[in-house]
Amino acid sequence: MSVSSVAAVENSLVAIAHQTRQAARTLASLSTQQKNEAIEAIAQALESAASDIAVANEADLKAALEDNLAKPLYGRLKLDAVKLKGAIKGVRDVANLPDPAGAVQIHRELDDGLVLKRIACPLGVLGIIFESRPDAVMQISTLAVKSGNGVILKGGKEAVRSCQALVKAIRQGLTNAGVDPNAVQLLTTREETRALLELDSYVDLIIPRGSNAFVQFVQDNTRIPVLGHADGICHLYVDVAADLGKTTQIAVDAKVGYPSACNAIETMLVHQDIAAKALPVLATALQKEGVKLLGDEATCQVLTDTQAATEEDWSTEYSDLILAIRVVDSVDGAIDHINTYGSRHTDAIATENQATADYFMAQVDAAGVYHNCSTRFADGFRYGFGAEVGISTQKMPPRGPVGLEGLVTYKYQVVGNGHIVATYSGENAKPFTHRDLV
Amino acid sequence: MSVSSVAAVENSLVAIAHQTRQAARTLASLSTQQKNEAIEAIAQALESAASDIAVANEADLKAALEDNLAKPLYGRLKLDAVKLKGAIKGVRDVANLPDPAGAVQIHRELDDGLVLKRIACPLGVLGIIFESRPDAVMQISTLAVKSGNGVILKGGKEAVRSCQALVKAIRQGLTNAGVDPNAVQLLTTREETRALLELDSYVDLIIPRGSNAFVQFVQDNTRIPVLGHADGICHLYVDVAADLGKTTQIAVDAKVGYPSACNAIETMLVHQDIAAKALPVLATALQKEGVKLLGDEATCQVLTDTQAATEEDWSTEYSDLILAIRVVDSVDGAIDHINTYGSRHTDAIATENQATADYFMAQVDAAGVYHNCSTRFADGFRYGFGAEVGISTQKMPPRGPVGLEGLVTYKYQVVGNGHIVATYSGENAKPFTHRDLV
Repeated sequence: MSVSSVAAVENSLVAIAHQTRQAARTLASLSTQQKNEAIEAIAQALESAASDIAVANEADLKAALEDNLAKPLYGRLKLDAVKLKGAIKGVRDVANLPDPAGAVQIHRELDDGLVLKRIACPLGVLGIIFESRPDAVMQISTLAVKSGNGVILKGGKEAVRSCQALVKAIRQGLTNAGVDPNAVQLLTTREETRALLELDSYVDLIIPRGSNAFVQFVQDNTRIPVLGHADGICHLYVDVAADLGKTTQIAVDAKVGYPSACNAIETMLVHQDIAAKALPVLATALQKEGVKLLGDEATCQVLTDTQAATEEDWSTEYSDLILAIRVVDSVDGAIDHINTYGSRHTDAIATENQATADYFMAQVDAAGVYHNCSTRFADGFRYGFGAEVGISTQKMPPRGPVGLEGLVTYKYQVVGNGHIVATYSGENAKPFTHRDLV
Repeated sequence: MSVSSVAAVENSLVAIAHQTRQAARTLASLSTQQKNEAIEAIAQALESAASDIAVANEADLKAALEDNLAKPLYGRLKLDAVKLKGAIKGVRDVANLPDPAGAVQIHRELDDGLVLKRIACPLGVLGIIFESRPDAVMQISTLAVKSGNGVILKGGKEAVRSCQALVKAIRQGLTNAGVDPNAVQLLTTREETRALLELDSYVDLIIPRGSNAFVQFVQDNTRIPVLGHADGICHLYVDVAADLGKTTQIAVDAKVGYPSACNAIETMLVHQDIAAKALPVLATALQKEGVKLLGDEATCQVLTDTQAATEEDWSTEYSDLILAIRVVDSVDGAIDHINTYGSRHTDAIATENQATADYFMAQVDAAGVYHNCSTRFADGFRYGFGAEVGISTQKMPPRGPVGLEGLVTYKYQVVGNGHIVATYSGENAKPFTHRDLV
């Protein structure tokens, strides 16, 4: 694309982003009840548009077949009547979640008549970029409305007709509820994705949903904060004091249940003093489920038919029925391995020794540190957040599975009656009271 | 500098950062009492090293005179006995602050015997880059120790001897308390600053302290999260329902008290229906304090001897006794101006109309939104945080004045007894209890 057409895309996108920001400002001022009414209107509009959505989705599916779209992608693209009904139920569920905006986090008297409040408020405009999965449009738009944010959506090109039909219905629902429909916008071209990543004065948070490589690309190409994670390299450490029955259950659950999930384990670390006993039991159970094992030298001495793992394996997310195994000399060896090769997502220890578990959970640097349970519990719904907008492996909050609270920030309000700083400084400075109010 | 010497700096810095990270891991596991004892040991070591510190500072001051260092920088560089004593008192004050790490933010039963906790924990390693002001070394190192973080400090080259003497004493204090002194490190060359900004796998947060241009440079040249702000373009909007007495007090306090502070106002917006009455009163009070006024056309019609403001003035932080004034047609006009030209720092409204104040505070997009008080209250100490590690104008938390809580993140701990996800999915899925525990 020529430089001038990039500029043209950016200009039209700035206009869209500006509209979204204006619409978001009025959305932010709605009451919880008004936002919930808008969500109900969206659900009803989607129900009314069900046949249009089906037609659009069938056209996308037909084109996908012609383009030989990979089978898993084709499955995700499909939005049949059952899936649509489930997604609309999901929309209504969001109305029942607590409103993340408006909560008073700090309420403090600074002095007589001078009061500080910290209040949760929407971020502003979200940019959501996702591959395939048109049902994501409904969930994300509803979470945006609930949290009082505008949203600019960019779906995969294979789902463009479905996304257009869905967004048309969602905007109709907003209009029916008296809400500016520009709060929800859809982009459809690849060029717009690049331009969206440049809009740091209009977009407050980017949430990419797709492959690791795609998320990494987004992280590397924007100044806007990104909520998400590239790799999910999770570990299970089998301590010398592990209960082998529990450990085997956990290992199988964490590897086999849904191997492409980001919270599935990729590497198992085994204490050297339990390796001879534990490895054959664990290997039998995992291989029975079709898991291919790779091992370091010590592992291969016990499991003689296991393929050797390379240095690269320790930092690979297989997203498949493959598990790398390494023998470590101590819990410190396990911690060092995890802090070196892990992706700070979720790491578990299996042990009956409480002190070792406490030490592991304190020293491992990850969003989730688990004791005697499967890493696959790392999920916003399982944590009881009611929704999950992403899982962050960054160090700064929000970290780990992020619910609606990830879509709000806060602002400080100070209300006085002519109060000035000069009163509280210099020779006869008046002291602050700093009294927390209930 | 040649490519190979850049690589050499990076290599030696990686080794330092690795040491710091290791030391931070043990620091993070200390109890609050142990950390407070380390802080007391630092205070004592600084007292013992007072004469060495004085000698080093005098050498820096001598060199600064020879190099014709600008006068305000020279003033900040000076660390005499009184300033040192005050800084050591500041060190001891940090011991009295609440420990930001360890707080349990969520404690929830997911199911019988499966418990989720969200616990505040240190970030890991902080990178602090500051200009002049050797006293910052003491404050920052102590805040790092209190929050359980390692810290890599880079001071200005004009303060190198002072910083070296201070860090030597601080490390001695840590050693005396049985803490790994590598938790606090000092870099001394400019090349190391660039290399530090590259260390995103070792450094978890960068805090730059210096000019706007310097902070902007840091923000533009690192993938590490940055806590700070470049511009502080704060506004006072004088509403049609403003009380002129209070407003004049506030305007003078917010502009004159400390004009180079980031929370001082740069622009005053005045409602057109009060302009003829308010502008002369405000101008007289401000000019009496030596403030130079710049105005838009409507302002200049009332204040005829005022210089015209240009478009550029609306986005200029003067850091000086200069104030730009613009007449707006409504509170919406003021909000639009602020959301367009402001830096999301702190903006105030003067009005006796509660509804207008509420609307302004809801619609202005800034870390601080104030009603009938001076913008200069935007400060961690004035908010009662006990310390301020920076003021952030980013949208995502931490936002506004940030206390010790800005130096911690959190992790999720899940403890079970062999619990697996398979139990809670599929046909006969067991429901989660999601019961909050006290």
